[in-house]
Amino acid sequence: MSWLPIPSDSDFTLANIPFGVFRHPITGTGHPAIAIGEHLLDLHVFSTHGGFSQLPEMVEHLEVFKQPTLNAFAALGQKTHRAVRAYLQQVLTADSPLAAVLQYDETLQKQVLFSQDAVEMLLPMEVGDYTDFYAGRTHAFNVGCLFRGTDNALQKNYEQLPVGYHGRASSVVISGTPIMRPNGQTAEGVMEKCKRLDLELEMAAFVARGNKLGEPMSVVQARENLFGFALMNDWSARDIQAFEYVPLGPFTSKNFGTTISSWIVLPCALENFKALPLQRTSTIPVQKYLLDPEEKSVYDIALTVEINGATLTKTSSKNLLWSFPQMLAHHTVTGCNMRTGDLLGSGTISGEGVGEAGCLLEATKGGKEPVALGGVQRTWLQDGDEVVIKGFCGEGETRVGWGECKGVILPALDI
Amino acid sequence: MSWLPIPSDSDFTLANIPFGVFRHPITGTGHPAIAIGEHLLDLHVFSTHGGFSQLPEMVEHLEVFKQPTLNAFAALGQKTHRAVRAYLQQVLTADSPLAAVLQYDETLQKQVLFSQDAVEMLLPMEVGDYTDFYAGRTHAFNVGCLFRGTDNALQKNYEQLPVGYHGRASSVVISGTPIMRPNGQTAEGVMEKCKRLDLELEMAAFVARGNKLGEPMSVVQARENLFGFALMNDWSARDIQAFEYVPLGPFTSKNFGTTISSWIVLPCALENFKALPLQRTSTIPVQKYLLDPEEKSVYDIALTVEINGATLTKTSSKNLLWSFPQMLAHHTVTGCNMRTGDLLGSGTISGEGVGEAGCLLEATKGGKEPVALGGVQRTWLQDGDEVVIKGFCGEGETRVGWGECKGVILPALDI
Ligand SMILES: [Ca+2]
Ligand SMILES: [Ca+2]
Ligand SMILES: [Mg+2]
Ligand SMILES: [Mg+2]
Ligand code: NI
Repeated sequence: MSWLPIPSDSDFTLANIPFGVFRHPITGTGHPAIAIGEHLLDLHVFSTHGGFSQLPEMVEHLEVFKQPTLNAFAALGQKTHRAVRAYLQQVLTADSPLAAVLQYDETLQKQVLFSQDAVEMLLPMEVGDYTDFYAGRTHAFNVGCLFRGTDNALQKNYEQLPVGYHGRASSVVISGTPIMRPNGQTAEGVMEKCKRLDLELEMAAFVARGNKLGEPMSVVQARENLFGFALMNDWSARDIQAFEYVPLGPFTSKNFGTTISSWIVLPCALENFKALPLQRTSTIPVQKYLLDPEEKSVYDIALTVEINGATLTKTSSKNLLWSFPQMLAHHTVTGCNMRTGDLLGSGTISGEGVGEAGCLLEATKGGKEPVALGGVQRTWLQDGDEVVIKGFCGEGETRVGWGECKGVILPALDI
Repeated sequence: MSWLPIPSDSDFTLANIPFGVFRHPITGTGHPAIAIGEHLLDLHVFSTHGGFSQLPEMVEHLEVFKQPTLNAFAALGQKTHRAVRAYLQQVLTADSPLAAVLQYDETLQKQVLFSQDAVEMLLPMEVGDYTDFYAGRTHAFNVGCLFRGTDNALQKNYEQLPVGYHGRASSVVISGTPIMRPNGQTAEGVMEKCKRLDLELEMAAFVARGNKLGEPMSVVQARENLFGFALMNDWSARDIQAFEYVPLGPFTSKNFGTTISSWIVLPCALENFKALPLQRTSTIPVQKYLLDPEEKSVYDIALTVEINGATLTKTSSKNLLWSFPQMLAHHTVTGCNMRTGDLLGSGTISGEGVGEAGCLLEATKGGKEPVALGGVQRTWLQDGDEVVIKGFCGEGETRVGWGECKGVILPALDI
């Protein structure tokens, strides 16, 4: 038990210790932090005041917490991440051998503990490149049916490799950033405000350590090279997408904003929540470079999407055909180099049941069947809509979650 | 005339003054430079030694030349780029009012002038995001015929907007970097060394100044926000591309390497080489946000591709349906934010005539008709092939060019 009060339904228990970056209210600069209950712990100031003096392996690396992003910390590798998390768990556990570092030092507490409500969160990583995959097979199939009919819904490549495309890194924004409805072309001669604005429920992963150009990563290496996971909303302008996406894929329909959660949960915090991925139906074996030695290669995280407080989606992150290590290994198969801070999206996550669709395109069958949301009918996102994605696993003291990934829709510019 | 000897066929005349970054042989760090004849001028050391003391508007910005990339210089804007180019033209002109800065100072000359042959060039810009367009209509049509038949060769969007896709920034490499033949999946159950390795002849543009998320750039603003132009080779694994590209576009077939020329030519150096773009055939007018007020919106640059010294392609960069300002404006139409250093590719540039194909896919009609190259027949790139793209306009003392954009193919890794 922590000496800090942790609400019983908190995502930020001692079992979690997720990493993020907040704007320090005095300096105005980004400081790395971890979340605990309703507070965050400023790792910059904590490390400056000797907070890590009893963790020898960090003593020579404390400059990583002086950076305005988590990239330098991520680049230290999983062994260090695990050690720092375990150390901070001890520091925050009541009357543990390390509790003395902070539990009884009220002066230091005042300097390093902030109420999450009182501070602004910043992008936790500098994203070099962002890639969005398409590993949610239920989503891919449902959308494929809408766009190309049932027979061609899934292309021949779908079960052979993790289909993905390069996204736009510059417009990755932190939870809470408003999203402006885009203008764009939706048909020949038609320029208009997007009428089919959608969300996409996704999980995201950040790369801790990359590879050199020309030296692909194995799935095993890829698993070791992940830093952690976030919630993601890949905002999508469906009408613009439908017109622009042939033959080179989505472009301006996706690059106006991609929202990620403020907190990144480490793989070691999710060890108890592993699950089997979706099973392939193809009789052609997976290529060797994509074989994942871990049977339970994905996580069973309870995911929800709420629009203005009404629940649109309840599903699980296990609804993926490919694991993040498989996606990352595939990303490098032709030699592509990854860098610390690179962002991978899972693709929209949908379950097969009613109320499990991870986007409005699926939930409304392409806009044809409005869904009931808190007493109103809804097909696409309207101006002022607030979309909140939540995710967690476990309960009580073992609960591990992300808080929320949120965005509100602003009206389009007048053309 | 310059006081430095400039060979009569040099791309790097006084009329050019392109910018790049080289590794300083003593410090080992990247220094901004300009090319002149067979030399380059180290702007870092030149500015440290008072080289810009007679250019008042640069005096307070000299820190930009202490950076290892041109990003900070680019961010100063076109007015400053033009002033620096004009100043350096004077410094390098024999017995001009500014010649005294360097012409008679042999000590300074020894510190700032290097033979291009003797130094290593580095990536000139830190590329935040890289986007590849598809504005070479002849190429798009020819490839469309091969992939989808004549009737669907150009999709309905093609003449309404500059089709493009997000590329991979991490694997943008400088001319001379070897390119390793990739491995990848080319069909269900088939993992192999790429058999259809191709080049793509493209022009590229770098962004000088970006825009805020949610605030699109007009075409006029986009033209002012360009830094300069480079030659580009978008290496492409056609067999991997054909299997992976549906429905989200090219991915691992393109992300193993994109080569750019060492030198970036400013728009002001190309003023005399403007040309009309390809004419649209659509009767539907161009949307207002894409109207380019400049009739001559592209450049007539003589482009060649050589493989092992034999000419594959001779064409002109005017074979584009969209100008770079149009591409950049479209990129931001839904609100996407651009940043200094962002890279835009034109798409493969091909002319309609024989020998004007900008890639082997077109030149060989999908690999069916080998081309004669210096006495050998060739369909796709072979290990050891050296591909050189060159580009220039004007002649003699008005010649403006890029030198070369080069890469040699290394054998694939054994799987
Ligand atoms: Ca997506
Ligand atoms: Ca291309
Ligand atoms: Mg997006
Ligand atoms: Mg490429
Ligand atoms: Ni408090």
